[in-house]
Amino acid sequence: MQILKDRIRKDGVIKSGDVLKVDRFLNHQMDVELFTEIGKELKRRFSDCEINKILTIEASGIGIACIVAQSFGCPVVFAKKNKTKNIAGEVYTSKVESFTHGRVYDIIVSKEFLGPGDKVLLIDDFLANGKALEGLIDLVNESGAELVGAGIVIEKGFQRGGDAIRSKGVRLESLAIVESMDEKTGEIVFRD
Amino acid sequence: MQILKDRIRKDGVIKSGDVLKVDRFLNHQMDVELFTEIGKELKRRFSDCEINKILTIEASGIGIACIVAQSFGCPVVFAKKNKTKNIAGEVYTSKVESFTHGRVYDIIVSKEFLGPGDKVLLIDDFLANGKALEGLIDLVNESGAELVGAGIVIEKGFQRGGDAIRSKGVRLESLAIVESMDEKTGEIVFRD
Repeated sequence: MQILKDRIRKDGVIKSGDVLKVDRFLNHQMDVELFTEIGKELKRRFSDCEINKILTIEASGIGIACIVAQSFGCPVVFAKKNKTKNIAGEVYTSKVESFTHGRVYDIIVSKEFLGPGDKVLLIDDFLANGKALEGLIDLVNESGAELVGAGIVIEKGFQRGGDAIRSKGVRLESLAIVESMDEKTGEIVFRD
Repeated sequence: MQILKDRIRKDGVIKSGDVLKVDRFLNHQMDVELFTEIGKELKRRFSDCEINKILTIEASGIGIACIVAQSFGCPVVFAKKNKTKNIAGEVYTSKVESFTHGRVYDIIVSKEFLGPGDKVLLIDDFLANGKALEGLIDLVNESGAELVGAGIVIEKGFQRGGDAIRSKGVRLESLAIVESMDEKTGEIVFRD
């Protein structure tokens, strides 16, 4: 998706430790016009699929998921990272190891909102080591819903997540795949 | 906003401890069609205002804020609840006491995304004791941006938050104000 790649080159900042900071438009400040275009592109890529639910994970996936959901005409469910007293009753749960925060946390979804008959598209802003996406896949499998695929805004192609997810047979559409990036020169190479 | 009140009556669940669970459509599963109507209504209520930025707080405010931002044609910035290694550099910060989680946490916004010249509308899903909204107001004041007002989906009118915010002279538009609710009968009374 060319306008996305252009935007990453313009506003992305490469930091040490394989960090690509895109908080000017994606995950701190959010450019909702760009999100609308992302929604249209994902609808085009999954146009052959019946999708009745979008599943994402808090926090930065929620905004994109909601705007993408407008294109699909379906609701969003977001997996929560901590059990709060507002979630009573039964939940699906999985464990996720965070690349950004360096710790393991539980993710949960209420059983009321995911189950057999649901055709689920996973949405997230980033795919790096793939742990968050694998956690969401676990939740879908546990629920008996059908996993249609996953739509990712930025995949770090030089980390193992994308290959790991694809090797499970999951249909994965990443709108920009970063093949390499150079902290010193600021150069970013995208996969074709 | 009548369709919102109808939806709260239909899908809201009253729990002990003054908890109104609306996770079927607002803050776990998210009805983006309803969010679109919420965006139109807030645009109508703030139609006399110039707004160039929407500020919310993770997590459940993000989805509503992004869809409301489509009506205003502006970006969203969300305050983060924990400092991650992805946020380097200078930030505005405030402390918030959580009604839901029963603890105090820091909220932060990068100085890059808020400052003099910004005309800010605050958006959140819930207003109860008002602590989250007060934290966001602190961030706006600290930044030198102009606070235009706040748009809230559901205000618990029987808690102190709304009055506290209004007494500061903040223009507060709550789309549904719950005056009282009865856990035993399930009855919800809205303020006119």
